[in-house]
Amino acid sequence: MSLVTLYKGHFIDTPTPGKFRVREDAVAIVEAGKLLALEKEVPARFSSLPVTDLGAGVVIPSFIDLHVHAPQHMQMGAGLDLGLLDWLEHHTFPGESRFADEDYARKIYPLFAAELLRQGTLRSVVYGTIHPESTLILAQALEKAGLFAFVGKVNMDRNAPDDLKETTEDAFRDSELFCRKLTGRDGVRPILTPRFAPSCSKKLMEKLGQLSGRLNLPLQSHLSETLSEAQWVSELFPESRSYTHLYNDCGLLGPGSLMAHAIYLSDGEIDLIVERETTLVHCPGANVNLSSGIMPLGRCLDRGVKLGLGSDVGAGHTLAMYRAVVQTVQVSKLLRILKPRENHRTVSLSEAFYLATMGNGEFFTRQGWGPCGAFEPGMSFDALHIDMGLPQAAALSALTQLERFLYAGDDRDIKARILAGREL
Amino acid sequence: MSLVTLYKGHFIDTPTPGKFRVREDAVAIVEAGKLLALEKEVPARFSSLPVTDLGAGVVIPSFIDLHVHAPQHMQMGAGLDLGLLDWLEHHTFPGESRFADEDYARKIYPLFAAELLRQGTLRSVVYGTIHPESTLILAQALEKAGLFAFVGKVNMDRNAPDDLKETTEDAFRDSELFCRKLTGRDGVRPILTPRFAPSCSKKLMEKLGQLSGRLNLPLQSHLSETLSEAQWVSELFPESRSYTHLYNDCGLLGPGSLMAHAIYLSDGEIDLIVERETTLVHCPGANVNLSSGIMPLGRCLDRGVKLGLGSDVGAGHTLAMYRAVVQTVQVSKLLRILKPRENHRTVSLSEAFYLATMGNGEFFTRQGWGPCGAFEPGMSFDALHIDMGLPQAAALSALTQLERFLYAGDDRDIKARILAGREL
Repeated sequence: MSLVTLYKGHFIDTPTPGKFRVREDAVAIVEAGKLLALEKEVPARFSSLPVTDLGAGVVIPSFIDLHVHAPQHMQMGAGLDLGLLDWLEHHTFPGESRFADEDYARKIYPLFAAELLRQGTLRSVVYGTIHPESTLILAQALEKAGLFAFVGKVNMDRNAPDDLKETTEDAFRDSELFCRKLTGRDGVRPILTPRFAPSCSKKLMEKLGQLSGRLNLPLQSHLSETLSEAQWVSELFPESRSYTHLYNDCGLLGPGSLMAHAIYLSDGEIDLIVERETTLVHCPGANVNLSSGIMPLGRCLDRGVKLGLGSDVGAGHTLAMYRAVVQTVQVSKLLRILKPRENHRTVSLSEAFYLATMGNGEFFTRQGWGPCGAFEPGMSFDALHIDMGLPQAAALSALTQLERFLYAGDDRDIKARILAGREL
Repeated sequence: MSLVTLYKGHFIDTPTPGKFRVREDAVAIVEAGKLLALEKEVPARFSSLPVTDLGAGVVIPSFIDLHVHAPQHMQMGAGLDLGLLDWLEHHTFPGESRFADEDYARKIYPLFAAELLRQGTLRSVVYGTIHPESTLILAQALEKAGLFAFVGKVNMDRNAPDDLKETTEDAFRDSELFCRKLTGRDGVRPILTPRFAPSCSKKLMEKLGQLSGRLNLPLQSHLSETLSEAQWVSELFPESRSYTHLYNDCGLLGPGSLMAHAIYLSDGEIDLIVERETTLVHCPGANVNLSSGIMPLGRCLDRGVKLGLGSDVGAGHTLAMYRAVVQTVQVSKLLRILKPRENHRTVSLSEAFYLATMGNGEFFTRQGWGPCGAFEPGMSFDALHIDMGLPQAAALSALTQLERFLYAGDDRDIKARILAGREL
């Protein structure tokens, strides 16, 4: 009994993508970090316990970011008049090089963790740089902030600036060592991170694929973000049927794999993604900023592809996942109206919200972290209390308050952040 | 001498759209609200005066919003899964009806003015509702906040809910009376505001056109925001060659006219807009949210159309014009890549920033308010001091700081707001 906590409030979640579920004036019964039940009244057996009344506003599942580059947090917004490959060369790689310096990492990464927390992103899957020591500092910063995260040391053994290039052997050895150091911790876990095919040799990708199988490690990379990159990959690896088949040939696709962007996939590639149960991570903000294109998300949803959502900072310009939710809806509208012959459909706000909570949560669930992402019995109690302090004259329904927060709110409206029952 | 104030800082503006002008460690000499000069050093004759050192960060012209609906401020983000006409019926019109109650207006409009100020939008062109008394309360709220604005009482004499419909005679009489009451004030001025052709009879539009000429009043409306609306207008007014020609036939186009959206204009309509020296107001946020389409802004810029930028709250979901700047760049990128055969070009960040400052300022200049929108000698000294408080380890150039603010900053980074030399 002593571990039970009660929260009263207006709860909104999306156990399914089709619509928001609103439960007003409900009581969440939380035990040992998990939701026991969401009831209309405090059950008799808990009547002696105090109830934390969250009063006005709404309570929603906390956000999850499935694709974000921690070292790029300092460059948000910079140089976005450029395309992907120029932007990497002029902004991203010089910025990442600085993380060879561990003192710099110790200064910068706590700011990243603080910003994730501020924006209500309590779980994330994060890229570091090629530097194992700095990336360990990143993991420690996330852990210290009380957040849950998968953290990856990036691998690049070719087509990268000299100071961001490893030998194939170093890349592999450092990756295994990094993953072993992060194994068995509570808040942070390792994820293998070959950056993307152009900057990895086939040998490195194959070895990482084998390591993933041997140590049962998840893996993340980028897939088909721009046409010029996809063209480059087909020149670098003429022996593979497609960009997606290349990753499959190297053993990089599976239920523990996250592939970001996936804008220019053929039907055959999407079939392979479905078959391998790989998750595609939609990053609308970044795709617009770098003029990459728009992933046909509605089509992927309807075909049963496993999907997630990422901020992709720094090509995305905000860590706020509520902004990524809105961007998801927005780009789907534009894809529909600007490509009328392709019969795209609009993605609704509830579908986009689902991705940022339940959809992304499924990756954590699959990786053995226990269920999360909605207010269902047995799920980790991960919640944000949102209160926009609206004047009574404009009293809004719970759902309209959430809509307004997603579109027009900011971190100041997040009044409480709870992860696995623990207020951060 | 006593009226001279000196500010030291890193000044960035866009006297021309093509690029940002950066003047670091410069001194602005401000006299009677106007910029005398921007110098590298304090001139000898002012050496006895104190210098306000704005230190870190950058100083930019304050923002101007050329299209915003004050009564819709309370509905930002609500119902944006709908299209224009449904959204009007289910969200906007019920919200506007409440302003029949002046007590409600007295509660809500000061919040709108405060939010404009908070976001650094120190000049704006604002829609009220059809209610003259409430719209006067809006004007007073803006004036009290120290802002400069054109304020319009909306006219609708058909195709509107009963409680938002006026007779043609009432609409005309109330408009003239409203404009006379607002004439001769310092901070707020009147603008005629027929909502859009579907909700105005031809007789009303013609009478407002004549009034505009007789009293030398500016005028604002909506033009060709969606395909279904444009189709409706062609059915309502079969005698006019086009939507744009209809407004011209009614005497609504001229150098003092603002037409918002203008997405679906033919080449002939654009020619007419150029010939009549009318300003088109781009509202990218709203156009995306309501799936309206994307105005071919790059093409309009290159054809010499007078252009401005608007938040279009509540179809737009933020009053922050720095967000509208970014949205402008973003939708131009999407239009280019999703419509490759139409040869659209990307609009650069400096061009979009130009619209939100100099471009919009030209409307105020033309309407006799004196020049504004950049840091040129003789211009009104309208400025924002932006400081994102970035850690020294990530020291950024002045221009990169501005890029980061536009993309990733918020009102908390605006440390000072100065309008006509007066700190608000």
